[in-house]
Amino acid sequence: MLKRRIVIVGRDGAMAQFFANWLTSLGHSVEGFDRQTWHRAAEVLPEADLVIVAVPIDRTESVIRQVGPYLTSNTVLADITSIKRQPVQVMLEAHHGPVVGLHPMFGPTSDSVSNQVLVHCGGRLEQQLHWFCDAWIGSGGTVLYSNPTEHDHMMATIQAVRHFTTFVFGCHLQAEDVDLNRTLAFSSPIYRLELGMVGRLFAQQAELYADIIFNSEEGLDILRRYHNSFGALLSELEQGNREQFIERFATTKAWFGPLADVFLDESSKLLNAAVSQRKPADLVMERDS
Amino acid sequence: MLKRRIVIVGRDGAMAQFFANWLTSLGHSVEGFDRQTWHRAAEVLPEADLVIVAVPIDRTESVIRQVGPYLTSNTVLADITSIKRQPVQVMLEAHHGPVVGLHPMFGPTSDSVSNQVLVHCGGRLEQQLHWFCDAWIGSGGTVLYSNPTEHDHMMATIQAVRHFTTFVFGCHLQAEDVDLNRTLAFSSPIYRLELGMVGRLFAQQAELYADIIFNSEEGLDILRRYHNSFGALLSELEQGNREQFIERFATTKAWFGPLADVFLDESSKLLNAAVSQRKPADLVMERDS
Repeated sequence: MLKRRIVIVGRDGAMAQFFANWLTSLGHSVEGFDRQTWHRAAEVLPEADLVIVAVPIDRTESVIRQVGPYLTSNTVLADITSIKRQPVQVMLEAHHGPVVGLHPMFGPTSDSVSNQVLVHCGGRLEQQLHWFCDAWIGSGGTVLYSNPTEHDHMMATIQAVRHFTTFVFGCHLQAEDVDLNRTLAFSSPIYRLELGMVGRLFAQQAELYADIIFNSEEGLDILRRYHNSFGALLSELEQGNREQFIERFATTKAWFGPLADVFLDESSKLLNAAVSQRKPADLVMERDS
Repeated sequence: MLKRRIVIVGRDGAMAQFFANWLTSLGHSVEGFDRQTWHRAAEVLPEADLVIVAVPIDRTESVIRQVGPYLTSNTVLADITSIKRQPVQVMLEAHHGPVVGLHPMFGPTSDSVSNQVLVHCGGRLEQQLHWFCDAWIGSGGTVLYSNPTEHDHMMATIQAVRHFTTFVFGCHLQAEDVDLNRTLAFSSPIYRLELGMVGRLFAQQAELYADIIFNSEEGLDILRRYHNSFGALLSELEQGNREQFIERFATTKAWFGPLADVFLDESSKLLNAAVSQRKPADLVMERDS
């Protein structure tokens, strides 16, 4: 295997470290790079086979513009932000060599590459990064080939909406001052898991979620439509329109098709796994009657 | 162990069967009972140590009123619906012996009693059902002692809101005609799990969810407040108020306290388990560049 020289800009980030660990484990030479080591840019960057920009979205554009002039036309320039149109466009402007937008579809708490999806959006001469994709697949991961426009549409659909609704739900729990511990005592495994999804968001960086949510114009449009649907369905609930609810339920069930059962089966396995992992301390038991 | 005579009214329901299987496995005598066998009511019901009403909410009241007159004052009358104030009240009116409202906090796809929570709302002489609770605990389950008012408040907070928002999200996906298969190819494990929670709901009975959602006055009030919060937060997003988002995020994070990290840790373990179970067929791989 050819040993590559890789520079990861923004080395302190959790995803930067995930990639550094993985690439190092494959025998490549990985150098972390940040503001403190910027004075070595002229020495380190032109030698790199691959430069991965792994800084938050709001700094990605300026970092790409700073890095670009130091690269030779043999260096692949890539980023790993969760949007792709704008960073890929900026990379194409700032660098004349190979450009690839990457988006790891998992968080830094993942424990291996195995079964993880990496989205690949080619910008220019992206075949220069095939070794990286092949290594990803060799480590048990999956590469999903897309393009910046499709990617950003998918992310608006998937991430912006889910993250924002999860954010709203967390704020709602806080506004209602719900007794979380007591609700957990009452919890079905599915509620614990759903609450886990909410708590999980707030355990992470606000900036990361702000970046995803505030950088998606499409996401905002979708959220507006979602909010309107919510209002309309709530009105039907207020009117006690149970038949309408059951009819809509059936329509959506039909639309899900066989996936509904796949999801039921898949999530049941997970829930059973979650229940079997429950520690007695998670549960409350008291007899006051 | 004393062998008890238990009658489960509504024997064809999945939860009825779950309880029948469990009680039979303990050596008790369990008889299923429904409209077809109603002509045997005068023979079977007076002999029972315990009668469990396990029919849908909208039939629970009438079934309780039908069953009541056949019971002796030694029989424990219990129900397992997901609301408790109204059924417990009706049981107290229809029967002069022991009354207990039960609510299993898990679905019928669960594979054992182990680690499962059963909520117990005493109505009258509930100590007559201690053998049942002790057996539940003996099988590895947990009994949560509550009362009908607290229970219904908790359920409005937990179930009505979560189920309705999940329902709305499914309807939204259908209205947007989202390409689920393509979004799954892009999916992070967490999205697959979240989508799983939505698909899971639609794989089940509309009536069950309608019962839970339409029978909670408190749930409706909470949903109205949630919808208003959503609108207010969406306005801030429309105004590009990123600082406000980050501030609210911090407030809610602080409110979650140590639970946020507990949830992050717990859900990360689950997500890693989900990823390790992924089959290659779940993932899409194509190189078109």
